[in-house]
Amino acid sequence: MRLSRYFLPILREAPREAEIVSHRLMLRAGMLRQESAGIYAFLPLGLRVLNKICAIVREEQNRSGAIELLMPTIQSAELWRESGRYEAYGKEMLRIEDRHEREMLFGPTNEEMITEIFRAYVRSYKDLPLNLYHIQWKFRDEVRPRFGLMRGREFLMKDAYSFDFDQAGAEHSYNKMFVAYLRTFARMGLKAIPMRADTGPIGGNLSHEFIILASTGESEVFCHKDYLEMAVPPADVNFDDVDGLKQIFGQWTAQYAATSDMHEAAEFAKVPADKQVSARGIEVGHIFYFGTKYSEPMKAVVAGPDGKETPIHGGSYGIGPSRLVAAIIEASHDDAGIIWPEPVAPFKVALLNLKQGDAATDGACEQMYQELTAKGVEVLYHDRDERPGAKFATADLIGLPWQVMIGPRGLAEGKVEVKKRADGSKELMSPAAAVDLLTK
Amino acid sequence: MRLSRYFLPILREAPREAEIVSHRLMLRAGMLRQESAGIYAFLPLGLRVLNKICAIVREEQNRSGAIELLMPTIQSAELWRESGRYEAYGKEMLRIEDRHEREMLFGPTNEEMITEIFRAYVRSYKDLPLNLYHIQWKFRDEVRPRFGLMRGREFLMKDAYSFDFDQAGAEHSYNKMFVAYLRTFARMGLKAIPMRADTGPIGGNLSHEFIILASTGESEVFCHKDYLEMAVPPADVNFDDVDGLKQIFGQWTAQYAATSDMHEAAEFAKVPADKQVSARGIEVGHIFYFGTKYSEPMKAVVAGPDGKETPIHGGSYGIGPSRLVAAIIEASHDDAGIIWPEPVAPFKVALLNLKQGDAATDGACEQMYQELTAKGVEVLYHDRDERPGAKFATADLIGLPWQVMIGPRGLAEGKVEVKKRADGSKELMSPAAAVDLLTK
Repeated sequence: MRLSRYFLPILREAPREAEIVSHRLMLRAGMLRQESAGIYAFLPLGLRVLNKICAIVREEQNRSGAIELLMPTIQSAELWRESGRYEAYGKEMLRIEDRHEREMLFGPTNEEMITEIFRAYVRSYKDLPLNLYHIQWKFRDEVRPRFGLMRGREFLMKDAYSFDFDQAGAEHSYNKMFVAYLRTFARMGLKAIPMRADTGPIGGNLSHEFIILASTGESEVFCHKDYLEMAVPPADVNFDDVDGLKQIFGQWTAQYAATSDMHEAAEFAKVPADKQVSARGIEVGHIFYFGTKYSEPMKAVVAGPDGKETPIHGGSYGIGPSRLVAAIIEASHDDAGIIWPEPVAPFKVALLNLKQGDAATDGACEQMYQELTAKGVEVLYHDRDERPGAKFATADLIGLPWQVMIGPRGLAEGKVEVKKRADGSKELMSPAAAVDLLTK
Repeated sequence: MRLSRYFLPILREAPREAEIVSHRLMLRAGMLRQESAGIYAFLPLGLRVLNKICAIVREEQNRSGAIELLMPTIQSAELWRESGRYEAYGKEMLRIEDRHEREMLFGPTNEEMITEIFRAYVRSYKDLPLNLYHIQWKFRDEVRPRFGLMRGREFLMKDAYSFDFDQAGAEHSYNKMFVAYLRTFARMGLKAIPMRADTGPIGGNLSHEFIILASTGESEVFCHKDYLEMAVPPADVNFDDVDGLKQIFGQWTAQYAATSDMHEAAEFAKVPADKQVSARGIEVGHIFYFGTKYSEPMKAVVAGPDGKETPIHGGSYGIGPSRLVAAIIEASHDDAGIIWPEPVAPFKVALLNLKQGDAATDGACEQMYQELTAKGVEVLYHDRDERPGAKFATADLIGLPWQVMIGPRGLAEGKVEVKKRADGSKELMSPAAAVDLLTK
C-alpha cells in the first residue's frame, strides 16, 4: 500500500481524553476514532489488525471443531424472558423499542439465541457434541465507558457455545476450547495464563479467565513463574483425544494462578519464593461451563439412547477481538510507539523513501515495493513528501515489525538499511539481501 | 468438511412463512433462521456464501482504490441533526435511548458519520481523491419486513463514500465505482445492468441502480438486449485512466435500460423490436453522486490550491451482501434446489457416500476427501448414515456446483460418478480423473 493513496491520519499530540497507553497510541497512530462515548470507528490501519486477530481466532476455533455461524445484533426481549435474564441484566443491556413497540435489545451475549437455534433443529444425542460460534458486534451500556477499546460499549466478540449430552462430554468440550485458547493467544505473540475465575452473570460452576501480563494491566494477578515458559500445544494436537486434552488442561492448571478476586495469599505463599510472580494482567478470554442453566428453562433437550429427553449441558467461550487490539499494544510498546507482533501487524514492512523526488531513490524504493509485494509481503510504502525524521517517527509510532530505509547515501554503496522495530537493531545490506530477509 | 461434524439442518418441508423461492430454499437448505421479524441468523452454510460474496466485493473495492475501514453500528442522533436527516428519516430509523438518556440510533447508512471522520482529519485538496468503505450491519425498521433477506430489517451493507475536490473529480470517482460494480456482479455469475435511478432519501443528481434479471424479480425492468452480452472490464482495467473509465461508463449507459419507476415507453419503443427485453429484475447495488449535500451543512471542507476552503463533492455506493445471497438464488435455482455459481458456492464439491459402512466405499470416499482437501478444494462430505435418495435430494437442494457419488457398483469398475449441478450432466470416471477435473 502506498501511503499517498492510503488513509492514515497520524496525530502528533496525544488527545487528552486517552487515559491509557493503548488508547493514546491507537489515536495517535490513526487506527481509531471515537464516535460516541465508548463507541469507535476502526480506521484502516486499526481494521487490519482487528482482521488479523479475527483470522487467528477463527482458524483456531475451526481447528478445534467449532463451527461458525452468524447471529444478528438485535434480539427480542421475549427470548431473554425465557431464560429469566431480561430483568436481571440491568442497565448494561441496551433496550430498544421498534416501530411496532416490540421490546428488542442489542445483544450483550448470545446464550439465549443460540439455545433457541439449537432446540429448533437438534433432537438426538447422536447429533452431539456440537460447538457453534460467531464473531459479532455486541453492546454493553457501561455506565462510564473508558480506556478506549479496553472498556468500550460497542465491541466485537467471538462467542462459542458448546452442547453436550452429559457432563463428561461437556468437560471435553471445555478442554477443547481451553486448548484452542492457549494456541490462539500464543499465535498473537501473547503469554496468556488461564486463571480460575468467578462465573458472574453467565452462571455455572467452572470457569477460567485467560490473562496476559502487561505492566499497564487493569488488575493484579499472582502466578507461578513456570507458566511463562510453558509450551502451548502444537497445531496437530488431536482434539478428539479426551485423555490427551485432559492432560494438557491438568498441566496448565496445576500451578498457582489467580486474579486478585480469587487470590488466596496462604496458597500463593506455598509457591517457592523465586517462582512467585505478582504482576499486572489483562483479561483477553473467558470460558464457562454452566451445565443446564439455559437448557432447562429454555427446554433445549435431546433424546438419549433410551429415548428419554434430557436437557443438554452447555458452555460458552468468549474472546474479544476489539479488546485484544488494545491489549496487545498494552503488552507490546515503548516510548516511541507500538511494537506489533508479526502475526497481527497491520503490514509487515514499512518502506521509507528518505529522499522523495530523487530519481535513483524513488526507483530503488519502487523496485523494492514491487518485489516484496509480488512475493506476498505486506508493505506500507511511505512515499509522501516528508522529511526523513517525520517518516522515522511515524514508522516507530505505527510499529510495523520491519523498516526498510532507502536513501541516496546508502544507495551510493549499493545498500539499504533494515531496522527491526522490536529491538531497534539496524543493518546495512544489498536490496537483494533485504528481500531475502523479509521473505524467508 | 464432514457432514457428520457439521451443522446443516435440512428441512424437508418449506416453512409457510416463506413467500419467495430464495427464502424457501434458504430455510430448507439450512442456511438461515428467522430470529425476529426481518432479523435472521446465518447458519453455517449461509454464512459461507455471505463471506464469499463479501470477499469478492472487498477485492473489487480494493482494486478500484477504495480503502476499507469499519464504522460502528450505533450512532448519535446529534450527527444526523447536523445533516438535517434525523427528523426527515422517519420511522424506518431505529431510535434508541441509552442509560444516560442520550439519543442514539442503529445506523441505516453512514453518510453523516463518514463525513464527520473525513472533516476531522482531511484539510487539503492534496489528500484527495479519497474513497472510504466499510462492510457493516445496518438496520431499517421496515413496517412490514418480508421476503427473507430481500427485505429484512437487519442487513449487511457495503457502503463506500468518495470525497473529491470538484465535480470532475467526483465524476471519475463515480466511474471507478461503476466499473468496480460491473466486475463485482459478473464475478458472482450475475448479469447486472446499470439503470438510471431516482436518488431518493440519499439525495443528489446522478444515480444508477444495478439490476440483475431473474424471473422471480421484485420489479419490472426494460432494457436493450445487447446488455446481456456486453463484456465487463478486465481485472487489469486502469482505474486512474479518466478517459478510459468515461468510455466504459458511456458504453454501459448508451442503450436503453430502466426500471418501471423511470421507464419511458416512447423511448423504449425506439429500441428495435428484436432487441427489446422486458423482464423482472432485482436491485443489487445503487450508486449516488450527491455533490455538496452533506459537506455543506456538515462543513467538510478542504483548502484548495489557492488556500480557499471549499466543501468537498461526495458520492456514496452501496451493495447489500446479505440481499445478494437471496438475489443469486432467485437468479439461479430449479425445482430441486439452489444452483450456486462456483465463485459464491459454500463448498465446491458434494461428496456422496452411497453406502456408508461398506469398507471399500468408505475407504474410496475417505481417499477422495483427503486428496481434494489437500489440493485446496472445498468439499462437503456426506458421510452420514442415510439412504442414497436422501443424499441426492440434499445435494441438489444445497446446490454445490459438483457432486461426486461413490458407491459399490461404480467402484467394482473402478469408477466414481461426477455430476454437474447446473445442467445435471453425469459422467463415470476413475477417481484420479475426478480429482483432475475438480482441481483444474
